[in-house]
Amino acid sequence: MPPVLTLASGSATRRQMLEAAGLEIAVAAARVDEESVKAALLAEGATPRDVADALAEMKAVKVAAKTGGLVLGADQVLEAGGALISKPENPAEAVTQILGLSGQTHRLLSAAVLVRDGAPVWRHVGVARLTMRTLSPGFVEAYVARTWDEIRHSVGGYQIEAEGIRLMARIEGDHFTILGLPLLELLNYLVISGEIEG
Amino acid sequence: MPPVLTLASGSATRRQMLEAAGLEIAVAAARVDEESVKAALLAEGATPRDVADALAEMKAVKVAAKTGGLVLGADQVLEAGGALISKPENPAEAVTQILGLSGQTHRLLSAAVLVRDGAPVWRHVGVARLTMRTLSPGFVEAYVARTWDEIRHSVGGYQIEAEGIRLMARIEGDHFTILGLPLLELLNYLVISGEIEG
Repeated sequence: MPPVLTLASGSATRRQMLEAAGLEIAVAAARVDEESVKAALLAEGATPRDVADALAEMKAVKVAAKTGGLVLGADQVLEAGGALISKPENPAEAVTQILGLSGQTHRLLSAAVLVRDGAPVWRHVGVARLTMRTLSPGFVEAYVARTWDEIRHSVGGYQIEAEGIRLMARIEGDHFTILGLPLLELLNYLVISGEIEG
Repeated sequence: MPPVLTLASGSATRRQMLEAAGLEIAVAAARVDEESVKAALLAEGATPRDVADALAEMKAVKVAAKTGGLVLGADQVLEAGGALISKPENPAEAVTQILGLSGQTHRLLSAAVLVRDGAPVWRHVGVARLTMRTLSPGFVEAYVARTWDEIRHSVGGYQIEAEGIRLMARIEGDHFTILGLPLLELLNYLVISGEIEG
């Protein structure tokens, strides 16, 4: 079977989510300077939600220009106290970020945009709220030291599907959104639009 | 490190959830005639929630009598329209069950009981609500034929972490509860009671 869509993301987690759901997909990571785009959008007063949505669209449009067909772009951001928190660049930054989120509620926003023939045909931003336990610096330092290789590509410095669950007191919202893609909404669109069987 | 607890369940999914969270566990599946116990409890007027909770405790107590220490029992039931739906025994039954749930909302209840020195010290029943899309018989028959080896041990005849997501229109509630164990609540108890670091 030909692929249903091209995933414009290098994220192994997103690829696994789509493949686990039984979709045939192609993958073509988009080269977008995310940090520059993010900084420019925030300087213009964009909200974290706007940033995630714009980056998802940008990635999809960029890949679609090469591949054609149906292309899925995705982006996830973390918002705490109205501010956007970026991926940690090193273990020390991860420790600082997690201690900043400790005892607090933050939001993960996962945007997805489907592009066909260069134009967006569907978009959705999933939102989940996570509350961390009050964590001791020693615990967080040991956690980051143990898991850095896995968490370095994760918004917020944790993977909920691994030891990151140990940081949480409460989780509200869709698991797939937390993993980085609002899968259920995407699948429902693909069924309704006749792209996949349902 | 010695195991934190013994999991009184042969479920690979529950084992993987606990290990992914970084817990050292032992495993000792409990031999309980679940169907007989379930039938007896329902005949006495027990609710699906009572059944899941009683089976989780029974498994934990049975294993604890042999192993000692902290033992975790778990059970999951599916409730639709007030009735308890059991695991399908064959593909035809799975098709019938899924078509019965099609277009409807059902609940998954995941009970967990921790036993120490033969007595329960903690218990929780997590509840999630799932709404299936309106599915065609042909789609469901093909789905069951394709996935029977994976879904045969799953309450409801689906695995949300695999192609089962394709059956759903809406999911409300905790992902770990859907997988069969209220992991977050369990971990929080283990931290508060000093069994694991936090």
